[in-house]
Amino acid sequence: MLVNRKITEYLAKAAAGTAVPGGGSVAALNGALAAGLTEMVANLTVGKKGYEAVEEDMKALAGMASQLRNKLTAAIDQDADAYTEVMAAYKLPKTTDEETSLRKQKIQDAIKHAALVPLEVARDALAVIDLAGRAIRKGNKNAASDGAVAAMNARTAALAAIYNVKINLSSIKNDALSHVEI
Amino acid sequence: MLVNRKITEYLAKAAAGTAVPGGGSVAALNGALAAGLTEMVANLTVGKKGYEAVEEDMKALAGMASQLRNKLTAAIDQDADAYTEVMAAYKLPKTTDEETSLRKQKIQDAIKHAALVPLEVARDALAVIDLAGRAIRKGNKNAASDGAVAAMNARTAALAAIYNVKINLSSIKNDALSHVEI
Repeated sequence: MLVNRKITEYLAKAAAGTAVPGGGSVAALNGALAAGLTEMVANLTVGKKGYEAVEEDMKALAGMASQLRNKLTAAIDQDADAYTEVMAAYKLPKTTDEETSLRKQKIQDAIKHAALVPLEVARDALAVIDLAGRAIRKGNKNAASDGAVAAMNARTAALAAIYNVKINLSSIKNDALSHVEI
Repeated sequence: MLVNRKITEYLAKAAAGTAVPGGGSVAALNGALAAGLTEMVANLTVGKKGYEAVEEDMKALAGMASQLRNKLTAAIDQDADAYTEVMAAYKLPKTTDEETSLRKQKIQDAIKHAALVPLEVARDALAVIDLAGRAIRKGNKNAASDGAVAAMNARTAALAAIYNVKINLSSIKNDALSHVEI
């Protein structure tokens, strides 16, 4: 799994231009980083003098950010796996008419799945932007810059994920999904 | 070293709100990711039909992005180490006047170093933005979205690094650095 790789290895694999990790995986990583930074701000607020009134709010916020971090971290691999499935579908045999038809269907199914993974990443990233905003407004002022970085990473995650939804949608034919306007 | 950690571990450590990795380290990670994505675009251009005219430019660009990726990856730990040094200086004894004076000097030296690390990250991130722009304009159109994500991550890296320069400068006393306007 990509998330079990060292940071240096993930970066080198991305740089190499190999099939995975691609833009969708990097989108998810941006989102996971954003969620982690939001959690950081909440955790640096809980138990601090002067922040007693927001203690419970910050604990809840840390919990939600933690769930989103886990979900977005999982998507780092889900996106790469979905792309690997698309490539596998393209490699299916197309000697007979039946094979050609089955291959076409498998490719379309794989591309739809590859579009839905980053769509979920985009939704989760938007949720992180909301949490980061709350953390900046109510959390430890000394950690506000970390909250700002969280918001920027979440924005990048959302935009990068939407790019990847669009790229996949452009390959879908004769389906309701091919007419979606984003 | 932080960069030898698994991605999951780095994210969990950031989220926990422990001293390191903090915002400066995350800034450097953003920069390394941006450099890696820029390299990706260049590598996905070299050898591709229709891009023969920019082949040499893209090879050179990949080389420069690779150097910046290595430098920014190293800064992920350099920033954390610099912060650890600041904390160590604060723990020095201050029983005698001599100890107090030495401690004060060590703290100031450590904070100056902790400001210079993200300043270099910011400079490198700006260089990555320039390379990402070239990769988007001249590189493989199919990878343009990866170039755009690179530019966003580089922007986040530069801004996050500057936040950390400012935070450290605010703790520097009676020194030319304390009057720097950023």
